[in-house]
Amino acid sequence: MICSPVVQFYYENNRFIEANTMNCDVFFISESTGITADELGSSLLSQFPQFSFTKRYHPFIDTIEKAEILVEQINEIAEGQSVKPLVFATMANKQINKVLSGVAANYYELFDNYLDKIADNLGVVPRRESGLMHGLVNELQYDARIDAVNYTLAHDDAMVLKGLDEADVIMVGVSRSGKTPTCLYLALKYGIKAANYPLTSDDFERHAFPKEILKYKEKLIVTTISPQRLHHIREKRRPNSRYASMPICASEIKMAMDLYDRHGLVPLDVTSQSVEELATQIVRIYRLSKSVD
Amino acid sequence: MICSPVVQFYYENNRFIEANTMNCDVFFISESTGITADELGSSLLSQFPQFSFTKRYHPFIDTIEKAEILVEQINEIAEGQSVKPLVFATMANKQINKVLSGVAANYYELFDNYLDKIADNLGVVPRRESGLMHGLVNELQYDARIDAVNYTLAHDDAMVLKGLDEADVIMVGVSRSGKTPTCLYLALKYGIKAANYPLTSDDFERHAFPKEILKYKEKLIVTTISPQRLHHIREKRRPNSRYASMPICASEIKMAMDLYDRHGLVPLDVTSQSVEELATQIVRIYRLSKSVD
Repeated sequence: MICSPVVQFYYENNRFIEANTMNCDVFFISESTGITADELGSSLLSQFPQFSFTKRYHPFIDTIEKAEILVEQINEIAEGQSVKPLVFATMANKQINKVLSGVAANYYELFDNYLDKIADNLGVVPRRESGLMHGLVNELQYDARIDAVNYTLAHDDAMVLKGLDEADVIMVGVSRSGKTPTCLYLALKYGIKAANYPLTSDDFERHAFPKEILKYKEKLIVTTISPQRLHHIREKRRPNSRYASMPICASEIKMAMDLYDRHGLVPLDVTSQSVEELATQIVRIYRLSKSVD
Repeated sequence: MICSPVVQFYYENNRFIEANTMNCDVFFISESTGITADELGSSLLSQFPQFSFTKRYHPFIDTIEKAEILVEQINEIAEGQSVKPLVFATMANKQINKVLSGVAANYYELFDNYLDKIADNLGVVPRRESGLMHGLVNELQYDARIDAVNYTLAHDDAMVLKGLDEADVIMVGVSRSGKTPTCLYLALKYGIKAANYPLTSDDFERHAFPKEILKYKEKLIVTTISPQRLHHIREKRRPNSRYASMPICASEIKMAMDLYDRHGLVPLDVTSQSVEELATQIVRIYRLSKSVD
């Protein structure tokens, strides 16, 4: 599933307007992965829901020759369009940037605007080297991220209650409340060892967390979710099951909340938050707990 | 593991210079997650290895009051510093941006430079709403990403050889060559259903891929790695084991290459590539196979 267009509406001047009614081609170019160009470019595009954007990615444009060929390709595509294409690029190399900037489209190079200003502020010269952000530059730090992924996988859904002393955080919540994707994101992006523990009927009957979990109270991130959203997610997994039914969803959430209350824990509401938003909050809590802000 | 400083060197004017010898405080600010500010800001900072940067994250600064308090905090920290702090912000709201821009530091707002220009190019007004990039905006697309994560987890290390018709890509390689983190990244970031299959002695003895895998030849991403790197990774997992020994690593890689050759497949070399770089290439191959560039 990539870029599947969905009819959406946005609200403006007291009425709903159908989104994606105009089209514009967008190119993301970089000498390396192009993740940064995609990130800022797509953020900017998200402010224009009136448009549907046809995105084209051109990573690893690291020679003048590749740049020249690409410029020709873009110019050809640009010719027939009523709305001139947008081009977002992050180029460390000034020569390649110069070639690309000659494109017959709206060219936005995202580094140059800032690189020289920052250099002035810091009083040093920038490296102007590509691949420093997402390449294998710092092997130790990279290996630590991969270790965190392995740890998180091994401690997903409380498959192992041992080794939790190694965890940076332990996410707790009812089944299917989004713990696993959030933990994986924390590991992959931030190198955080994120274990997770699903609350089950055992915990509810015991009226307490297991002692192996409670031991790490300061690392716990307990979560809650609306019964409607949980029902929706579980229905997709096991349609028409008791497990997915509204009464069961509502009752599990209620029992979870009682448990948190009993242990003096305040839950994070995951209902309308994305993995990225949850991870941002958890990283924040984790950093505060380490006195790093 | 976050931001652990490591002594590194960089090469300039024919000599190695110790990196991180100067320090500068950096603030990342956003009304939402701050992922975009972090992404471009950190990309820019990676061009200055002479400095070690103390990074501070301030997501969810979505009111003028929060912005005012933050400006005071930054000004206080800035006072004692010889190098003025850098502030990277992505602000959709002009009023909050105005408050922040008064900070006694080098302030870089990353949206404003482009938002009005793009609006001019497109002939429409930007929404200037926060959380459009990493929030739960398009629920269908978001759910597809989470589905991809679940699929990838269920099809990690060939735990299930069924359901591969649903896979977007199937990564193949010897054990510990980085398939799992790359597949998880593909799923989390791009919503790509990425299964993976580790080559084992069974495959080598059979001199062929299993037919369940070969059936999906057009989806296969076969990988290779240097014996040294594989040895290094496996040693950390099982020190001094036969599994991690150089002869076994070298022989497995050789047998894998013979297999690829037999099936007419060209491998991706993962040796010195990060998860992000590999994913970028795989997405590219996948998009080309779908005739989407």
